[in-house]
Amino acid sequence: MNIIQLIEKKRDKNPLTAEEISFFVQSVCDETIPDYQISALLMAICINGMTDEETALLTNAMAKSGDTIDLSYIDGIKVDKHSSGGVGDKVTLAVAPMAAACGLPTAKMSGRGLGFSGGTIDKLESIPGFRTSLTEEEFVTFIKRDGIALMGQTKNVAPADKKLYALRDVTGTVPSIPLIAASIMSKKLACGSDAIVLDVKCGSGAFMKTPEEAIKLARSMESIGRQNGRRVTALITNMDQPLGNAVGNALEVREAIETLKGNGPSDFTELCLTIGSFMLVSGEKANDLPQARKMLETSIQNGSALNKFKQFISNQGGDPSVADDPSLLPNANTVRILRSPCSQLISGIDGEKVGNAALTVKAGRLVKTDIIDHSCGFILLAKAGEKVEKGQPIAEIHASDEASAKQAEEQLLSAYTFGDNFEEKPMLLAYVDREGIHYDKNNDR
Amino acid sequence: MNIIQLIEKKRDKNPLTAEEISFFVQSVCDETIPDYQISALLMAICINGMTDEETALLTNAMAKSGDTIDLSYIDGIKVDKHSSGGVGDKVTLAVAPMAAACGLPTAKMSGRGLGFSGGTIDKLESIPGFRTSLTEEEFVTFIKRDGIALMGQTKNVAPADKKLYALRDVTGTVPSIPLIAASIMSKKLACGSDAIVLDVKCGSGAFMKTPEEAIKLARSMESIGRQNGRRVTALITNMDQPLGNAVGNALEVREAIETLKGNGPSDFTELCLTIGSFMLVSGEKANDLPQARKMLETSIQNGSALNKFKQFISNQGGDPSVADDPSLLPNANTVRILRSPCSQLISGIDGEKVGNAALTVKAGRLVKTDIIDHSCGFILLAKAGEKVEKGQPIAEIHASDEASAKQAEEQLLSAYTFGDNFEEKPMLLAYVDREGIHYDKNNDR
Repeated sequence: MNIIQLIEKKRDKNPLTAEEISFFVQSVCDETIPDYQISALLMAICINGMTDEETALLTNAMAKSGDTIDLSYIDGIKVDKHSSGGVGDKVTLAVAPMAAACGLPTAKMSGRGLGFSGGTIDKLESIPGFRTSLTEEEFVTFIKRDGIALMGQTKNVAPADKKLYALRDVTGTVPSIPLIAASIMSKKLACGSDAIVLDVKCGSGAFMKTPEEAIKLARSMESIGRQNGRRVTALITNMDQPLGNAVGNALEVREAIETLKGNGPSDFTELCLTIGSFMLVSGEKANDLPQARKMLETSIQNGSALNKFKQFISNQGGDPSVADDPSLLPNANTVRILRSPCSQLISGIDGEKVGNAALTVKAGRLVKTDIIDHSCGFILLAKAGEKVEKGQPIAEIHASDEASAKQAEEQLLSAYTFGDNFEEKPMLLAYVDREGIHYDKNNDR
Repeated sequence: MNIIQLIEKKRDKNPLTAEEISFFVQSVCDETIPDYQISALLMAICINGMTDEETALLTNAMAKSGDTIDLSYIDGIKVDKHSSGGVGDKVTLAVAPMAAACGLPTAKMSGRGLGFSGGTIDKLESIPGFRTSLTEEEFVTFIKRDGIALMGQTKNVAPADKKLYALRDVTGTVPSIPLIAASIMSKKLACGSDAIVLDVKCGSGAFMKTPEEAIKLARSMESIGRQNGRRVTALITNMDQPLGNAVGNALEVREAIETLKGNGPSDFTELCLTIGSFMLVSGEKANDLPQARKMLETSIQNGSALNKFKQFISNQGGDPSVADDPSLLPNANTVRILRSPCSQLISGIDGEKVGNAALTVKAGRLVKTDIIDHSCGFILLAKAGEKVEKGQPIAEIHASDEASAKQAEEQLLSAYTFGDNFEEKPMLLAYVDREGIHYDKNNDR
């Protein structure tokens, strides 16, 4: 088999066979084909697309290119959860203990943040003593005993994806639905769960700007999962501004704790209940979405979700009393107040700009070697859709010093737009499962 | 300016600006962008195409990437001639002296052969003593005095094309009309002529298989020329089998000499008269094609074309008596006869297979360092459209030894197909000039 023939086939809009796709992925891993041939094929895929079958085959080959994880020691249906990412997305922190409290074992591998978007591992490490590097034995013990554990990625998962992603990033071949879907799903397939609930963010603050694009991606990922024997539900959720009020590691943990106590911001609470419901139904712990939602609401009301969170923190070496007294979390040296420059409606908050401002106060890292200050970040006191008065505090800036706070203040202000209109959208725009697409237009929960 | 933005633009079907195209070509030459980004852009161009304006800009930037040649010392309109190449294409050898005999100065830079297709420089070097490496002074002197000179490419012409071509060859991005047109025309623009007559071969033995493709390429090259101030006429000529009867360097020189004496094969003679006519009209040495054709026919009949050929050979150190006694050209050690295996019509002769068989007898080179045996090659005694009897000689194989002759015999036979049908086509299928496309359906000259 010859890579040039594969490139020519895809250039001429012909589908690649299973053998050709696995030859390609194998050659990428072996480094037996040069980057300039890989990038030519990636561009041909980017422009001419791939069939659902090709995409599923590519994903499978990528998933098998490295270590795969065996979760068979957990009884029943294993449900994974993945978000396409966004500023302020601390869903895992709240939904994992909620789902575990409802009887769904939650065994998660998570990553660190890079660029404007944060990572669950970084957020958890703001809890004093918390360890994310568990031994496999510890991980299994916690899951079996308490139904919850979360660890950093240690194994070599989907190395083909790492190489392809690095090349796509510098060759204009990122925005291809089959390639994005294969990249996300290859890691999910390798991680061994039976069912996967995907949160595809859609809106000005997300990678997918329109519902049409988001639905295409959702459909592609569901199809990949189905063809590889996994049950996938892909939610398209609204992301026109950062999620919740807190941005930054300790601040987000605090918000997750408040949410587990029933005091979370409404948008964030809604998203946790929505994702959690689909997880419980996928894991067959609930018969339908309304029942699942009730179970999750109960887990908050009766304190079982918060207790599960404490157990989880305690298991992994953290101080569980942060749940009762969040002031035990790292506190920033200085807090600066951003005030509204006008009396008007906030018409939008640009998530990417907020994320970039967060880098200024060291709440995130621009390059892998940057060191995070877990105490820093923002509390968005007013969000899009709210009418504010000139001089009214619209955000708190938590920083290690006045200089960075001041610099971040300007950047953060530039993320806000003021105007006359704001269209309120439901959190869940639609979802895709094996039966097709479901619109949830009259969602008024 | 950022190469990724350019790639994204072309990926999304947007045209590149003059500045962007020259940044790209400059960066290719400077090696400031890696091959994997170049190949991604080439694939995007290959699939999404380029406008006529973009193609002209790309060609201009490529032409300016290296040395350009100044022909201003020659009075009047300088006419260049280029063929898209093919087995047995020795047109330059005959048409250059014919045109020069009609008063059109012919200053040509030519190349060597590689792969199955031969090169004019190699062919001329089969004449004892002939030098193709002239000083610039010699070149100018011969042109001014006798209106004819031909030398090998010494300058660094269009280096951007060399780099891009090498990468296209291994990334499935060769068959793109704008890229092919830019590659050919960049070298023509750099070589400084005012008018260019292009011979775009079309048919089973050519790179362009259908008239539609050939016309697209012809239109693109004419447009490039026009936008860069050159007068281009692009002929689409039939190439369903090798041109003439001779394939191989000395054998082709011999056939060119016979043609200058009026004894050439009819297809080859016809093509020389056709191309020569367009050259004379382009160079304003004739008012129209019929007048030009008459002038060329006269140059053969009155011996002036043959005399010009002798003068040309003699100027460049060769033995002009080869024109009177072609047996002075190198003769092969052995001549083997290929006989027809059946009594039937020859329905086709595959040019590429003939060219590859010629490599076996060392008439061409597979890699640049191969040494050519100028005496070797084939005489095709019967061509497509002829009815032959079983055992009838259909080709002579001129070789240095029996072993290679025998091996080539098998290969050569495989180039022949026998059947019931052969469609006779006119030599000139159509041509494109600044006024558009001209079909020549009733061409019966």
